[in-house]
Amino acid sequence: MNKHPNYLLNQINGPKDVKQFTISQLKQIAEEIRTLIVERTAAIGGHTAPNLGITEVAVAFHYVFNSPTDKIIWDVSHQSYAHKCLTGRVKGFIDPDHYADVGGFTDPNESEHDFFAVGHTSTSVSLAVGMAQARDLQKQSGNIVAVLGDGSASGGLAFEGLNNAGRMRSNLIVIFNDNQMSIDENQGGLYQGLKELRETNGQSANNIFKFMGFDYRYVADGNDLDSLINVFNEIKDIDHPIVIHINTLKGKGYKFAEQNKFKFHWSSPFDIETGQSINNNFSDDTYDQAVIDVLSEEIENDQPIMAINAAIPGTFGLKKLENKYPHNYLDVGIAEQHSLTMATGMAKNGAKPVVFHNSTFLQRAYDQLSHDIALNDLPVVILIKNGTISQSSWTHQGDFDIPYITSLPNIEYLAPTNEEELQNMLRWALRQNNHPIAIREPMHNVEHGKSQSEFNDINYRIEKSGEKVAILALGDFYQLGEQLVQEINNVLHFNPTLINPISASNLDENALDSLLLNHQLIITLEDGSLSGGFGEKIDRYFSDKDVKVLNYGAKKEFNNNIPVSDLYRKYHLTPKQIVDDIKKQNI
Amino acid sequence: MNKHPNYLLNQINGPKDVKQFTISQLKQIAEEIRTLIVERTAAIGGHTAPNLGITEVAVAFHYVFNSPTDKIIWDVSHQSYAHKCLTGRVKGFIDPDHYADVGGFTDPNESEHDFFAVGHTSTSVSLAVGMAQARDLQKQSGNIVAVLGDGSASGGLAFEGLNNAGRMRSNLIVIFNDNQMSIDENQGGLYQGLKELRETNGQSANNIFKFMGFDYRYVADGNDLDSLINVFNEIKDIDHPIVIHINTLKGKGYKFAEQNKFKFHWSSPFDIETGQSINNNFSDDTYDQAVIDVLSEEIENDQPIMAINAAIPGTFGLKKLENKYPHNYLDVGIAEQHSLTMATGMAKNGAKPVVFHNSTFLQRAYDQLSHDIALNDLPVVILIKNGTISQSSWTHQGDFDIPYITSLPNIEYLAPTNEEELQNMLRWALRQNNHPIAIREPMHNVEHGKSQSEFNDINYRIEKSGEKVAILALGDFYQLGEQLVQEINNVLHFNPTLINPISASNLDENALDSLLLNHQLIITLEDGSLSGGFGEKIDRYFSDKDVKVLNYGAKKEFNNNIPVSDLYRKYHLTPKQIVDDIKKQNI
Repeated sequence: MNKHPNYLLNQINGPKDVKQFTISQLKQIAEEIRTLIVERTAAIGGHTAPNLGITEVAVAFHYVFNSPTDKIIWDVSHQSYAHKCLTGRVKGFIDPDHYADVGGFTDPNESEHDFFAVGHTSTSVSLAVGMAQARDLQKQSGNIVAVLGDGSASGGLAFEGLNNAGRMRSNLIVIFNDNQMSIDENQGGLYQGLKELRETNGQSANNIFKFMGFDYRYVADGNDLDSLINVFNEIKDIDHPIVIHINTLKGKGYKFAEQNKFKFHWSSPFDIETGQSINNNFSDDTYDQAVIDVLSEEIENDQPIMAINAAIPGTFGLKKLENKYPHNYLDVGIAEQHSLTMATGMAKNGAKPVVFHNSTFLQRAYDQLSHDIALNDLPVVILIKNGTISQSSWTHQGDFDIPYITSLPNIEYLAPTNEEELQNMLRWALRQNNHPIAIREPMHNVEHGKSQSEFNDINYRIEKSGEKVAILALGDFYQLGEQLVQEINNVLHFNPTLINPISASNLDENALDSLLLNHQLIITLEDGSLSGGFGEKIDRYFSDKDVKVLNYGAKKEFNNNIPVSDLYRKYHLTPKQIVDDIKKQNI
Repeated sequence: MNKHPNYLLNQINGPKDVKQFTISQLKQIAEEIRTLIVERTAAIGGHTAPNLGITEVAVAFHYVFNSPTDKIIWDVSHQSYAHKCLTGRVKGFIDPDHYADVGGFTDPNESEHDFFAVGHTSTSVSLAVGMAQARDLQKQSGNIVAVLGDGSASGGLAFEGLNNAGRMRSNLIVIFNDNQMSIDENQGGLYQGLKELRETNGQSANNIFKFMGFDYRYVADGNDLDSLINVFNEIKDIDHPIVIHINTLKGKGYKFAEQNKFKFHWSSPFDIETGQSINNNFSDDTYDQAVIDVLSEEIENDQPIMAINAAIPGTFGLKKLENKYPHNYLDVGIAEQHSLTMATGMAKNGAKPVVFHNSTFLQRAYDQLSHDIALNDLPVVILIKNGTISQSSWTHQGDFDIPYITSLPNIEYLAPTNEEELQNMLRWALRQNNHPIAIREPMHNVEHGKSQSEFNDINYRIEKSGEKVAILALGDFYQLGEQLVQEINNVLHFNPTLINPISASNLDENALDSLLLNHQLIITLEDGSLSGGFGEKIDRYFSDKDVKVLNYGAKKEFNNNIPVSDLYRKYHLTPKQIVDDIKKQNI
């Protein structure tokens, strides 16, 4: 039900309607949007603070420009809520029954005013350059506007885009949203220069944007609607590239978000009155402490550990480590490529880098995985989270890591099945000097296993010896493997073999050959995309041998916020479905 | 035999020996090195002009600093010849019989003064930051020096590295080698700012390096040994990050290289007296003209084509297209990520981007392939060269593209087998609006096929219908498939089936199922790495069916300048070896 039937926003079905209001009414609309941002993110989670900070930009843009002839491209698009409210989608913000109808990122399937599905940073300027070049090539008109945050500006792609934008000879507008924050604090020398620009009201002669060929305007209060409308009117239809550098307040209007920008960058559901998180399905039952405990032990043992992340310490609970061992912690900002190449340099010079990445963001550094880490074969450790089939937005889909890592030489990709194994593998990885080791952190409920103090080899572990069917249950699908054993016992009345393969990249040929003696069917289970994955490596090994193989994992496709249970059913990732498949094999 | 037994260089067995000479002798040594660079690259090819331009930097570095305690990291390392001459490897430059002993890039297996195997651009600053952080963490000392060219500075990783270097509080020295060239001309707004710095003798207040937190020195003549030695002495052991911006002449000392920096960036063997290329094994029998012909046709038909490349127009012969259709050509500089994200924007706005990439460099934009092109499922066309098992340096190994492209949703990866098929596929790709299409240009001798004017579907083509064995011969291994048919005829006395699979990413299930009727063995041939590749997809399809499969391609490993014939033998990529393997299958 519409929570605010009296809001002016109810009169806005698209950008044209925005132009009917007075400036004073538009200011009220901005405040209405703020309320909706807080209400929606309090209820279902979301990017509270980034959206609060940019509300006036969206209002001013749709007041001055004519979307979709004039096009705005939101970097990351995690700050596009106000834009969505003004482009026909206010129902997804004003009516809790329809929150789920509208996603957290821009989506061309939702609206003609959204041009791209985007969730990774630093792409907006390059996308805008492409749209502008296409406009010019086809002799069309219209403004192309890219929004880029100061945090995203540390990503190399943003720089590549700015460098190519700066040489254009036609319309291109970059709104540089400087809120003095990345996800956490900004990291890098760049931010000194930006500070000087702010402190001189944009007058400093040392100006990276002008250096790169842009015209430039500075807006001291980027949350002041009048200022924004004035500058947009002034530069609309400009015939060359320009940066509008605006100083905004991340979290503006909601005091808890203003005070704790890091927590409210992306927030799980919270109580509006107190800003406190609400107990909910967002489990905090993770392996974070187990990982930090191992790093702390090794630091105490005088190992030169460096725990590296790219602007997402919260994902790994790394603030605890930073507080205790500040010299052993490094946030490089949004700069995934640098994180790995730098780690290569560290490992070469005797340190022990441990790089923490989300599966979906690590792919931003694929060449660095290959050309720097794998080729140089140095003992960099990479800890990967969210490598899993999940309900995520398709912009953050994390099930491609096994394919993209295991196709590279030299990198061992370990897949622990429980907390103790994760710790033992991490210790082993940190104490060896032979190869890069990636470790795929299990993503389901925290499981426990044998507390063996030593992990010495990556051979497969035959956990249950049986007959007919052998199950290779990788990483956090090991528990699914256990359930499958049970289901086979119950339904098919025999004991299959259960194997923990330890590594997604290793073929333990002795173990595989031994299975040929009394198994007719091999089953592989992996929590990731099958195409190029672990199961296919097993298929290749057995392709000329007398045994059949069934592979279970995700289909090669993008899935946008689909419940995991639906995906599991679709991919036959339930014990019952797999047993039905086994029956068809007539073994 | 040593061509110059009287050279002072013969007295240099390592950096310590460099310090024994007078400045005047060092200048002579620099000239000796120049002669060797020209002689070696004239004989066996190589990076003539980059090495000529940086000779004095290497001499001054080893005179002032103490390698390997002080460490120099060469970006790309294609300009490390002088460094190699001064660190015990002069034999590889002065004695033609030993040219092959020393590679064209830095290599830790060659010398303790080389820290990394490097061949891709823009990594040096990040590697240096890592080494410096490791030094500080372990409370060690020594200077860390990164060399970065102005051309490489357009790559986003260089910016990420500079941004993270600029905030350091300890020694880090960046030698910014500004020779006003990338591989071809520099591209981007950045180069306007650098020009202003040069024209003001480094005094301009607008200084991107200072903006990012660096101290700064300018050297107007970076080929003047005295100036370099002075500035190096001045800043040695500095306690904060500094950029030494040096203005050098690419190709210095060899007039043809000075006059044609593009041609001599990397040159095949040439006549020293005339600068003309020598007829040799470097074949110019390519598909370049065939591709340009199709693009020209489509441009003439008013298709809004944009031919995009990232600083390597020579690799694709694109200068011809640029000359004829300058509006339909775009070099983005060394900025592979931008090239793809920009292309996504172009396709969304109605243009027809065709992005030209080397297999080894396209991997620098893996996230852009995934998150921008594949997720948004827009009709970007990508033309890929050097996706092949080759004798390349392991830094440029191009056999991973099938794994990294075919594991992504939505992208179709076509693999033409001859010139006419390549043209037909390219026309089809440009005229469809459904999906991103990548095309893998065949890399062997130019082959010809049926000049069918239409290419309408991606189903497998059964070229020869036979029995027992079916050969899926992908792309430029189609001819190997034909040879294999012949060998099976001759040796095993039956007619196998030969299939052109058309695409590395498509499973034509009808075609595959039809093979089950009268074939016991499927053979896949692909000119790339097997792990995650085409053959494994076939393995998975047949893994629960009554047929065996043998996959032929490269092992997952790095190979450094190994002759292709050796690799083929190792990987059983000859008809005779495959027939021997078939015999063992007892079909």
